[in-house]
Amino acid sequence: MNQAKDPSALQAYNEIKARNLKLNMARGKPAPAQLDLSAAFLTSVDGQNYLSREGVDSRNYGELSGLIEARELMAAMLGLPVEAVVIGGTSSLTVMYDVHSRLLLTAAPGAEKPWFEKTKRKCLCPCPGYDRHFQMTEGLGYELIPIAMKDDGPDMDEVERLVQSDPDILCIWCVPRYSNPTGVTYSEEVCRRLASMKTAAPDFRIFWDDAYSVHHLYPEAEKQGKLPNILELCAEAGHPDRVFCFASTSKITMAGGGIAAFAASPANLEWFRQQQKIQMICCDKVNQLRHAHFFPDFAALQAHMARLAELLRPKFEAFEEIMERELGDIPGVSWTKPLGGYFIGVTLPDGTAARACELAAEAGLKLTPAGNPFPHSQNPHDNFQRIAPSYPELPEIREAAELYALCVRLAIAEATEK
Amino acid sequence: MNQAKDPSALQAYNEIKARNLKLNMARGKPAPAQLDLSAAFLTSVDGQNYLSREGVDSRNYGELSGLIEARELMAAMLGLPVEAVVIGGTSSLTVMYDVHSRLLLTAAPGAEKPWFEKTKRKCLCPCPGYDRHFQMTEGLGYELIPIAMKDDGPDMDEVERLVQSDPDILCIWCVPRYSNPTGVTYSEEVCRRLASMKTAAPDFRIFWDDAYSVHHLYPEAEKQGKLPNILELCAEAGHPDRVFCFASTSKITMAGGGIAAFAASPANLEWFRQQQKIQMICCDKVNQLRHAHFFPDFAALQAHMARLAELLRPKFEAFEEIMERELGDIPGVSWTKPLGGYFIGVTLPDGTAARACELAAEAGLKLTPAGNPFPHSQNPHDNFQRIAPSYPELPEIREAAELYALCVRLAIAEATEK
Repeated sequence: MNQAKDPSALQAYNEIKARNLKLNMARGKPAPAQLDLSAAFLTSVDGQNYLSREGVDSRNYGELSGLIEARELMAAMLGLPVEAVVIGGTSSLTVMYDVHSRLLLTAAPGAEKPWFEKTKRKCLCPCPGYDRHFQMTEGLGYELIPIAMKDDGPDMDEVERLVQSDPDILCIWCVPRYSNPTGVTYSEEVCRRLASMKTAAPDFRIFWDDAYSVHHLYPEAEKQGKLPNILELCAEAGHPDRVFCFASTSKITMAGGGIAAFAASPANLEWFRQQQKIQMICCDKVNQLRHAHFFPDFAALQAHMARLAELLRPKFEAFEEIMERELGDIPGVSWTKPLGGYFIGVTLPDGTAARACELAAEAGLKLTPAGNPFPHSQNPHDNFQRIAPSYPELPEIREAAELYALCVRLAIAEATEK
Repeated sequence: MNQAKDPSALQAYNEIKARNLKLNMARGKPAPAQLDLSAAFLTSVDGQNYLSREGVDSRNYGELSGLIEARELMAAMLGLPVEAVVIGGTSSLTVMYDVHSRLLLTAAPGAEKPWFEKTKRKCLCPCPGYDRHFQMTEGLGYELIPIAMKDDGPDMDEVERLVQSDPDILCIWCVPRYSNPTGVTYSEEVCRRLASMKTAAPDFRIFWDDAYSVHHLYPEAEKQGKLPNILELCAEAGHPDRVFCFASTSKITMAGGGIAAFAASPANLEWFRQQQKIQMICCDKVNQLRHAHFFPDFAALQAHMARLAELLRPKFEAFEEIMERELGDIPGVSWTKPLGGYFIGVTLPDGTAARACELAAEAGLKLTPAGNPFPHSQNPHDNFQRIAPSYPELPEIREAAELYALCVRLAIAEATEK
């Protein structure tokens, strides 16, 4: 290792390393202080108030599609009509897997046959994107095709070119609001093009993971309003069954213990239900009712999100401030200043991201592996780092940002030496 | 309709019919009084006590296999070592579906290829059995092969004959303790034969749904002890990967909102986990911790089951007593007197069960459709009725039993007339 070009950075790095830090910014986990804000959620259903608005006993079997109050809450979050929304367990990721497994095993509306019978299956992966999305389709035997992310969503020229010409391209992953990890929100134009584009596969599907629809960091961001109703856009364009929508409360109430929603066209919902009927008797309705009690209306949920934002915002801003101070003058280095969501994306000169990540790990700062937000966990340009500032406390965020800035300077110095 | 042979029954039936009853004994739902016994469960995790024994924050992401205290509880229920047990969401039925979907999409240990690639798939269905089991494999494209149930489990001569000769037979459904709906508990001999039998399919699997392992109706029944350890039996017989075990707390705490367990060999667990990793981040650990708090040890769970039994036992006994009084002298009519589980099975003369069920429905008593406990919901002998006495209150049980006895007498009278 040769950092001759930046000896002051090397010295500072070695001093930090000697402190044996243990910092973790690898995953988008809520901080304990965020979870504490949901303390009353935990006991919001007790031995007295277990009946739903319609008199359903949440403790017993029944209501496969979920309690109406839970469906209304999730519909408001998604900006979709309640008729289009059903509740599906505690994790939206699991519902996405369920839908993929149904697509593979049964013919969905518009499909000639189950996708498992196709000799090739390809999936479009706008990236940087969500590693767990890519790992799911990789694990289910799809070829992953990277698509560049622009400031207003996926590169739609490229998406349209590919889906029009290749009938093996069956689906695309989308996080339309405050994308993981770029923070990008899709423009209405991008949404319209996704809904209306011609696809060689007649059964092409959009996986619309609206994970951060209410996760605004700034009140002004919230005022910019909802995404367009993607179900409506698809229907208007003559492709009513094109899109599957997902959301959950994992980063609102309990991480991994919230409720998940699935929204789709009537034909898609009927197809989903056919397998759901043989998959379960019902989901956990007590947990649905906890949500309805804790959030008696959508305004209550929005107020809760504003309190969460007050905890998250200083962490994002501290990281951005230190990046500006330490790396503001270094060519080729930039970072996102997202208005919502859970991540900051740092762009670096080509060939330096993995090394900076490695240097950070050696000094006690665990980051998401640099390649993770890309298909097969490999970024051919090695120029991007996902930062998850939610979990550590503010002083740790500052420490981590200072350390990471040093790692970036050293990685660039090393690359320049070569 | 001609009931000339039993005019007194017809008169009594018409009198009851005029009362416009609304009784439901169709499904094995816990009664509200049972659920009330778990009132403290609902608030057993609050804003203070959310950490697991090992310090895991149950409110946050992590622990894909479940909290250790939840795994220990389910292992004690199943009579299996904790290392073999993982937690899988809120419903064992959903875990069974997950396992079937994995078998179809990926090659399990010992399998040459995913089962979806096999041109034929057959499933053995001991019957009368659990309708949701049969519907699941039917919906996933299996041919269902009925197997007669005997007093000590499935007809093993027939099972062995079939699995040895037909490589398309890939699996069997088993409810080894207090079978739904016959109440039969498998003998050790049956367990051994299932574990050791030769199968033409090298990747043959037993779905061992130990749904009622702790659901004793009588203290003496509990003293008869656990089933043999089926994982051990299979391993000893040289088939360590043959069996998948399942259980849940749906009929212990919250119906549809409990926790489910999956137990299997190390190779099967590793195979299960490969897809689980892309299916979810984790299950709802708060609900796991609720169980661990509500049942600090297995004795606490057993004490809870004894209290549930005190509510259930009088219902079973009232039904049996009225059957004895009203139908005790009618040839070809008999019923089970189960020591545990959720159901009574009534055997009737051939060709009368569906008619008796229909007569009951017409007089306001909803029963499980007579064919339901059989593959494709069709009982070729039409001679069996599942009774679910858990949900109605005791006076309703008496009313229902009296009405059903009349329906049986009328159905037999009609059949005799023909």
